[in-house]
Amino acid sequence: MQIIESIPEMSATAAAWRRAGQTIGLVPTMGFLHTGHLSLARQARAAADKVALSIFVNPTQFGPGEDFQQYPRDFARDRSLCESAGVDVLFHPHPAGAMYAADHSVQITENVLSRGLCGASRPGHFAGVLTIVAKLFHITQPDVAVFGQKDAQQARIIQRMARDLNFPVRLVIAPLIREPDGLAMSSRNIYLSSGERRDALCLMRALQLARRLYREGARDAETIRRRMIEQILQTPSARIDYAAVVDDTTLAPAAAIQAPILIALAVRIGKTRLIDNLMLPDDRLCNLPE
Amino acid sequence: MQIIESIPEMSATAAAWRRAGQTIGLVPTMGFLHTGHLSLARQARAAADKVALSIFVNPTQFGPGEDFQQYPRDFARDRSLCESAGVDVLFHPHPAGAMYAADHSVQITENVLSRGLCGASRPGHFAGVLTIVAKLFHITQPDVAVFGQKDAQQARIIQRMARDLNFPVRLVIAPLIREPDGLAMSSRNIYLSSGERRDALCLMRALQLARRLYREGARDAETIRRRMIEQILQTPSARIDYAAVVDDTTLAPAAAIQAPILIALAVRIGKTRLIDNLMLPDDRLCNLPE
Repeated sequence: MQIIESIPEMSATAAAWRRAGQTIGLVPTMGFLHTGHLSLARQARAAADKVALSIFVNPTQFGPGEDFQQYPRDFARDRSLCESAGVDVLFHPHPAGAMYAADHSVQITENVLSRGLCGASRPGHFAGVLTIVAKLFHITQPDVAVFGQKDAQQARIIQRMARDLNFPVRLVIAPLIREPDGLAMSSRNIYLSSGERRDALCLMRALQLARRLYREGARDAETIRRRMIEQILQTPSARIDYAAVVDDTTLAPAAAIQAPILIALAVRIGKTRLIDNLMLPDDRLCNLPE
Repeated sequence: MQIIESIPEMSATAAAWRRAGQTIGLVPTMGFLHTGHLSLARQARAAADKVALSIFVNPTQFGPGEDFQQYPRDFARDRSLCESAGVDVLFHPHPAGAMYAADHSVQITENVLSRGLCGASRPGHFAGVLTIVAKLFHITQPDVAVFGQKDAQQARIIQRMARDLNFPVRLVIAPLIREPDGLAMSSRNIYLSSGERRDALCLMRALQLARRLYREGARDAETIRRRMIEQILQTPSARIDYAAVVDDTTLAPAAAIQAPILIALAVRIGKTRLIDNLMLPDDRLCNLPE
């Protein structure tokens, strides 16, 4: 596995692959890799001749007061995980400042799908995400890029960007990967104390309740939403950021569960903000335990 | 010469060229081609194996009350001009509506260089320009793209986008091309009556005055600016939108003419808004007559 820190070297490597007729799969990450990230790498491995995995903690997608500084980093561990996952190039831009010129002034915004859910409580977050993803696409020239269902809104907004800006890349949304007890894997789980770690299961349980209600015939979105909220609030350390039932394509609030919908949760456990989600009626991407 | 109307066909053609190891030059235009456009095509011809020229009157870069509907169109003429200029593919998206999904929601903005000059009087214009240029770059995958010095601010903002989003494309800024009497060529010159056509020379004459003052030793930007304004106002049909002396890189108002600067004018002659510009000290790109 090759480690590339220089942006021009990454561009040149991707260009050389392309000239040699090889297809490229990209997995953009912020590092501190877990099994979820490695499943993205495996999907890329299956879909393309060469796999690049990028590790870059992108400052522009963190708001003031968010955890950019504390975001966990462990490059040595990430490196060996990438090696074992069959990654060809680990792209680790260094120095990190090289990614944005001091006077950078261009950004990409999305103004419909990014209004609600995480976009409402994290203003500027998705502009930061789209801008860095576009930069990574241009640097690594992927035929395929893989994103996780865990960040459901992000995945849909990136799909929208690829469509609206005609990016010549196929996007794959890979299933949400969970810990054995059902907690959605996240680099931020490291922030949880052991008590908070138990409390964090309230997100998954609320989604299980929603699915049970749906299977029992409930179709009214507001009823399901209220029952989830009641369930989460039984965990005293939980502070709900949002609990939403939205159309899976437009991310607009859904009145009824008819067309494909997304049930999305963001909950603070202590100081840690966690997200999780469930798609209905087809819940396969979400791996929610029975 | 091939004419391509379908976006997927254009993408596939560009991908096939790339696979065959051929470099691609792109000339994005809004059609109603004149000698200026053809000089861009010649530059692309010299720089790449294959030349694509796009013709698309982009609705998102026109403001309400601007001339999107009236913008001149003559596809038959454009087609034969492209043929004679050695264009390989004339990309003419059709139906025009196919370029933007009904629910398109992603745009690219630049928030420093686009504040002044045309950006001040045409809000949203440069976001429309950057968004369509990014789309065309993704569809046609150019190695080189050619833009004209005539639209000086546009050229600098597109350069900024290419840098900030790491587009794998080299940009060429081609010289401003003028009519024999010095009027900057523009598709919009067709709007001018014969009296207005004479009055339109006031832009070029103001720039000539600025250059003369500079050669005589003037270095104070405000003095030069005032003298240009006085000169333009001697033409009764002229309404000044702006007359600006700015740093050529940052487009911020310049106090003195030291580092490379751009003198940019936008003037309405009757209902027609015309622009022209001069770079100093190196004025070669502007072809301003002595």
